[in-house]
Amino acid sequence: MTAFKQLQQHAKQISHFNHLAAICGWDQAAMMPAGGNQARSEAMAALSVHIHQLQTQPQLTEWYAQAETETLTDTDSAALREMKRQWQQATILPEALVQAKSLAGSKCEHAWRTQRGSNDWHGYEKNWAEVVKLSREEAQIRAEATGLSCYDAMLDIYEPGVTSTSLDTLFGDVKQWLPQMINSALEKQQQQRCIEPSGVFPAAQQKALGQSIMQLLQFDFNHGRLDESVHPFCGGVPQDVRITTRYSESEFVQSLMGIVHETGHARYEQGLPKLLAGQPAGEARSMGIHESQSLFFEMQLGRSAPFIEHLANNAHQHFSGQDSKLLSADNFQALYTKVERGFIRVDADELTYPAHVILRYEIERDLINGAVDHKDIPELWDSKMQQYLGLSTAGNFKDGCMQDIHWTDGAFGYFPSYTLGAMYAAQFMAAMQQTIDVDAAVRSGDLTPIFVWLEQHIWSKGSLLTTDQLVKQATGETLNANHFKAHLAARYL
Amino acid sequence: MTAFKQLQQHAKQISHFNHLAAICGWDQAAMMPAGGNQARSEAMAALSVHIHQLQTQPQLTEWYAQAETETLTDTDSAALREMKRQWQQATILPEALVQAKSLAGSKCEHAWRTQRGSNDWHGYEKNWAEVVKLSREEAQIRAEATGLSCYDAMLDIYEPGVTSTSLDTLFGDVKQWLPQMINSALEKQQQQRCIEPSGVFPAAQQKALGQSIMQLLQFDFNHGRLDESVHPFCGGVPQDVRITTRYSESEFVQSLMGIVHETGHARYEQGLPKLLAGQPAGEARSMGIHESQSLFFEMQLGRSAPFIEHLANNAHQHFSGQDSKLLSADNFQALYTKVERGFIRVDADELTYPAHVILRYEIERDLINGAVDHKDIPELWDSKMQQYLGLSTAGNFKDGCMQDIHWTDGAFGYFPSYTLGAMYAAQFMAAMQQTIDVDAAVRSGDLTPIFVWLEQHIWSKGSLLTTDQLVKQATGETLNANHFKAHLAARYL
Ligand SMILES: [Zn+2]
Ligand SMILES: [Zn+2]
Repeated sequence: MTAFKQLQQHAKQISHFNHLAAICGWDQAAMMPAGGNQARSEAMAALSVHIHQLQTQPQLTEWYAQAETETLTDTDSAALREMKRQWQQATILPEALVQAKSLAGSKCEHAWRTQRGSNDWHGYEKNWAEVVKLSREEAQIRAEATGLSCYDAMLDIYEPGVTSTSLDTLFGDVKQWLPQMINSALEKQQQQRCIEPSGVFPAAQQKALGQSIMQLLQFDFNHGRLDESVHPFCGGVPQDVRITTRYSESEFVQSLMGIVHETGHARYEQGLPKLLAGQPAGEARSMGIHESQSLFFEMQLGRSAPFIEHLANNAHQHFSGQDSKLLSADNFQALYTKVERGFIRVDADELTYPAHVILRYEIERDLINGAVDHKDIPELWDSKMQQYLGLSTAGNFKDGCMQDIHWTDGAFGYFPSYTLGAMYAAQFMAAMQQTIDVDAAVRSGDLTPIFVWLEQHIWSKGSLLTTDQLVKQATGETLNANHFKAHLAARYL
Repeated sequence: MTAFKQLQQHAKQISHFNHLAAICGWDQAAMMPAGGNQARSEAMAALSVHIHQLQTQPQLTEWYAQAETETLTDTDSAALREMKRQWQQATILPEALVQAKSLAGSKCEHAWRTQRGSNDWHGYEKNWAEVVKLSREEAQIRAEATGLSCYDAMLDIYEPGVTSTSLDTLFGDVKQWLPQMINSALEKQQQQRCIEPSGVFPAAQQKALGQSIMQLLQFDFNHGRLDESVHPFCGGVPQDVRITTRYSESEFVQSLMGIVHETGHARYEQGLPKLLAGQPAGEARSMGIHESQSLFFEMQLGRSAPFIEHLANNAHQHFSGQDSKLLSADNFQALYTKVERGFIRVDADELTYPAHVILRYEIERDLINGAVDHKDIPELWDSKMQQYLGLSTAGNFKDGCMQDIHWTDGAFGYFPSYTLGAMYAAQFMAAMQQTIDVDAAVRSGDLTPIFVWLEQHIWSKGSLLTTDQLVKQATGETLNANHFKAHLAARYL
């Protein structure tokens, strides 16, 4: 057997255990009674250790060296590249650092859950200092191994190929027009009135409504489910994708659009190349591309006029007896495109969201590169919030730099994916519209042409191409902010 | 570290992977969409291989040898005994035989799923011959390793300590009075009329009813769930027990009592000794003792007059508007104690059930010991059915020796557990009644004294005692058929 084949079999083996981790993780979030948590956490930890052992087996070094001398097809070369990438990610850091960071991160996150509520920056900062220190060590090691700058080496975990140079350009572009666009949108919406849902919207009815929309979006229920969890997510495996949502019975708009978002993630997973199942090359390209699919569903499709019509019609059917003005397409459109300057990223609308991400990007970039100290973050946060959104967070840590979970355990480099996803999505839509009348397809209720395009250009590619190649082949150009700007202008100006 | 401690840590490690297997197995039966099956089966197979590797690691031989020289407490001696037992079970058979039997069993079972429907004994018999041959080889190897007879070595897998000598005595006793008791019961019930459920009993209402009964039975919902699957079972782990049922909307009696049964299994699991969690000594004693708990719930408690009152009252609350005669306690009692001679074991009532088991026991004992040939089974089956239940299965294979799944993949030695369980349950009840007014406790709606007794005498013992010790300590005598006979006579004569 060739070394490449051996590596493939080994990757398949790892994927089986990742499968079990994904299902048990889903169960833990969506099904498990609270009393099962301790035993489950221990079992999952044992599984993690086993997966890590598989990923770092000594003979892999030789297999990779051997495989690079073998003659491979293009597909196999890409498969080798992606296996090797995952192997390098698994072996790049010394065990001691991984454990120290994991410990410091858990400690910081755990304390943060109460410190945030009491606005306790000083308590938080004590734990967080260690997380930042260890993350910088991590970045240093990754930088040496990859030849990238410290922060870029962290970016590379989530968004391979993207650098701070490219982000500075992309986000620099957005920064130039976004604050003014937010002003104009707010002005335009000043006399707009929307009716907020009030009353009771039973979870069972919301679920049925969500499922009808998932059907419209051609979610494959033979290879997936919809359930509930406190924090919505898309999990499972491509052959069995588990998405979750959370119902509040006092309103339905959040959960409904949340389902559209997760369905985007899910269809990407369901559409990944089946022939490469269980191989790194058959996995999703990156966090940013994953988010591009959920945001394509949520923002590009989900908030388009013809899709809003479907939402309104379906809501009418499932919430008969509710105020018909509330359930009108006009009101849905108003609710789903309402712009508001706010402190909290996860509550932000489509238009203000990039400001939250760019702010975080700039801060974490400088923090990891050592240009700023962790003690300076609250002040930096306040000044950037004032600059981008006209809001001050002076003294308000809990709605400022303490609001997100990401930094508490050192996931630096993740935030840019959100806005990269939004940009990719806009660029994909622009490209798609050159050959498909998207609005007409949505209006007809048969969205097949849209999904065929996505499957052909994005889903079926898995990780065979680099992100740059993928975007260029799909859209004819590399990622830029023009389509994103045009999309936002068309919707909000 | 002592060898004993090393063995304990190793056992704990194995239990983590068994935990994952239990949850993913539950998910496969209760949650997974059909399209996920192939990938899941592959992942579960990889997990099985990993667990088997852990169970058979070469250094264990030395650790066991070493541990036997170490000074241990009584509890630790029992813990060592049970670990060693599981290790021996895992290592006793050559890999090649395990694989051959698994293959032959899968092939036979798969074909059986269609052959049974078409009454195709000759097709079945061709595959089954191989299963029987390999099972005899297995029994032979087990016999040599344990010093037991061939069939007893198979019994030992499921019911350690029980031999065909003891079963011949126990079942021989039952055979003497059972046929006559069935006759008398049928005669007594001749003029009894019961109303069968008709109409629609929505699954959601049945589930709510089931949960209210689980509450009465003090199922711990913080450490378990109730869900649905085609074949009801009790799975998961002691910290998180997953029971399932299957609702037919045209009736509710089967599912309701099925839930009582599985709750018995579940409370045993939930009541196992927490200090021994993850160790073989902390696991359920045997198949027979497990079944004794489910049958204690289903037969001893569940069909008692005061429990039937609860069932009827709760059914009234959940099925308001249904015929009140149907939902009367008298009718419930009649429905749940109706005796009928039938072909099918899984549909059999409490009184005729032992006949089905004894028949299978006698046949499989002689088959594995080589006293009869697999070709002789249909004839033997027919003659024993006539003898015990007055029914002929001549030419009717599908309702005769082809009805059960157990033999298709060579699970010989399992059947006796069912009736052993019923006997243990009756003996436990008789002992309990010496100190507890069981009917009064049930009537009061607070069944705590009953569960305290079970926890103290059965659940908390895990596998620290042998089955014989367990039964003797709990009831003051070793297992015998007297209490079972008295119980059946009191209920049916
Ligand atoms: Zn997302
Ligand atoms: Zn049972």
